[in-house]
Amino acid sequence: MSLVVVGSVAFDSIETPLASREKVLGGSAVFFSCAASYFTPVYLSGVVGDDFPQHHVDFLKRRDIDTAGLQFVSGGKTFFWRGRYRPNMNDRDTLDLRLNVMADFDPVLPESYRRCKYLFLANGSTKMQLRVRGQCPGVTLAVADTMDHWIRDEPEQLRELLRKVDGLVLNDSEAKLLSGEENLVKAGHAVRAMGPRFVVIKKGEHGAMFFSDFETYVLPAYPTPQVVDPTGAGDSFAGGMMGYLAQQGNVQPKTLKEALAYGILVASFTVEDFSLDRLKRLTREEIDQRMVEYKRMLSF
Amino acid sequence: MSLVVVGSVAFDSIETPLASREKVLGGSAVFFSCAASYFTPVYLSGVVGDDFPQHHVDFLKRRDIDTAGLQFVSGGKTFFWRGRYRPNMNDRDTLDLRLNVMADFDPVLPESYRRCKYLFLANGSTKMQLRVRGQCPGVTLAVADTMDHWIRDEPEQLRELLRKVDGLVLNDSEAKLLSGEENLVKAGHAVRAMGPRFVVIKKGEHGAMFFSDFETYVLPAYPTPQVVDPTGAGDSFAGGMMGYLAQQGNVQPKTLKEALAYGILVASFTVEDFSLDRLKRLTREEIDQRMVEYKRMLSF
Repeated sequence: MSLVVVGSVAFDSIETPLASREKVLGGSAVFFSCAASYFTPVYLSGVVGDDFPQHHVDFLKRRDIDTAGLQFVSGGKTFFWRGRYRPNMNDRDTLDLRLNVMADFDPVLPESYRRCKYLFLANGSTKMQLRVRGQCPGVTLAVADTMDHWIRDEPEQLRELLRKVDGLVLNDSEAKLLSGEENLVKAGHAVRAMGPRFVVIKKGEHGAMFFSDFETYVLPAYPTPQVVDPTGAGDSFAGGMMGYLAQQGNVQPKTLKEALAYGILVASFTVEDFSLDRLKRLTREEIDQRMVEYKRMLSF
Repeated sequence: MSLVVVGSVAFDSIETPLASREKVLGGSAVFFSCAASYFTPVYLSGVVGDDFPQHHVDFLKRRDIDTAGLQFVSGGKTFFWRGRYRPNMNDRDTLDLRLNVMADFDPVLPESYRRCKYLFLANGSTKMQLRVRGQCPGVTLAVADTMDHWIRDEPEQLRELLRKVDGLVLNDSEAKLLSGEENLVKAGHAVRAMGPRFVVIKKGEHGAMFFSDFETYVLPAYPTPQVVDPTGAGDSFAGGMMGYLAQQGNVQPKTLKEALAYGILVASFTVEDFSLDRLKRLTREEIDQRMVEYKRMLSF
């Protein structure tokens, strides 16, 4: 089944201890779409300025990503982020952030998008996420991401959103912030009690945790020695997870766990190069081969 | 097969955000022995002062831990550590540290100990670890722990030790320090290249990683919501791991992975109460029941 994602499309300038890249393709909706496209057709909603080059659009289309929902703002500039990773490659500092056209992004989904059954509200203003959620009353599964900024600045809207989505994906520090719990197991259950049927806590290089009424589990990250650029890992994780769920067309516990594993594996490829470079040359066969290794790693 | 451990026996005074305890039983050799005793007979070598109460010795004996190698220094005081955990329960500050009788600890293993086939050199001076290693030329498996202090202060001795042990267990920050690598996968292989056949990196609440010539894998921690006191988790991990290996009497890849999992599970019990309190009431049945849950968690 097809999958809609609403989120950012961006230019990223990235510095790591070993190398740097200027104004490469990024954004939550882009990483998500590309990751999900290995499993299912994806409908992307986002906004760019007229500085956004056609070859990036062509790349998305080649990956079977529908860009009918990608708005072009004439005279506007695309969202821009500049960040620098610390030596541990987990912590990073934002050196510059320009919302540009993203500041006034008010997505109006095309009709074809509104009939989709799987919806992912990638990181963005909670108010905007709520408006999009309202445009898709008939979805089978709505999952949202959020971040510290919205947890602090839009707490009431976030509470409302949590009652209107089936799942929430957030990282470990965000889960602690939102729940007030330092223990991640307690934090996950506390967030789940706010509304969603399931909560996924992303732990970066340490994998991901899943919480539902019936289950609590952790899956480790795939141990890749090749970490070049962690940007987009979290969005790729969500894309792999949601893409697999949409492909399977169900959210049974078994499918959810497989989806979590696929999310982890797609993210493990994303970090192996800058921007979308690794995903651009990734094949579904490579994902499935890594899945075999991953399952073997967890068997004893 | 039986197992020898040489390490510290201590009094710990512990503060956590929720509670504190004064002068409770602790020390690397104690946590290790107690954890390993669920699997195999353990021979403990350590040193205490005459302030060490008989009921602690009785407890060790009840767990089938041989204390013939526990030296009592008349007029001496037992090793003492006071620490405070930060709200995340991972980071801690040492508020006081008194080596006391540990400062001059020069273990001379009883004859019965020297015939053991499995040896664990718990955290302590590398020079001391080397001397003990020399006393057990016929062991099947010698594994050592180390820490930042010895990595910085006794680098040459540590290099020598790494050529004389089969395995090394250390935590993530220590692996980075020893190898100079920030990526844990690279760090693990770099440490292994220094001599030991296998390296285990402990990641606390995130589980453990294993590195050998043939295999690299990660197993997550068991997600317990009940983290009361993390003291001794790493030593309990090592005890569960080595205890299981000694019980099985082999170090085949399959056994090593099972051993890693047992180490993770015993540690997950240790943190559920202060000091040895949870281990004191732990049964082998509880460990095996948690193993069933753990394997289910990792299956999909």
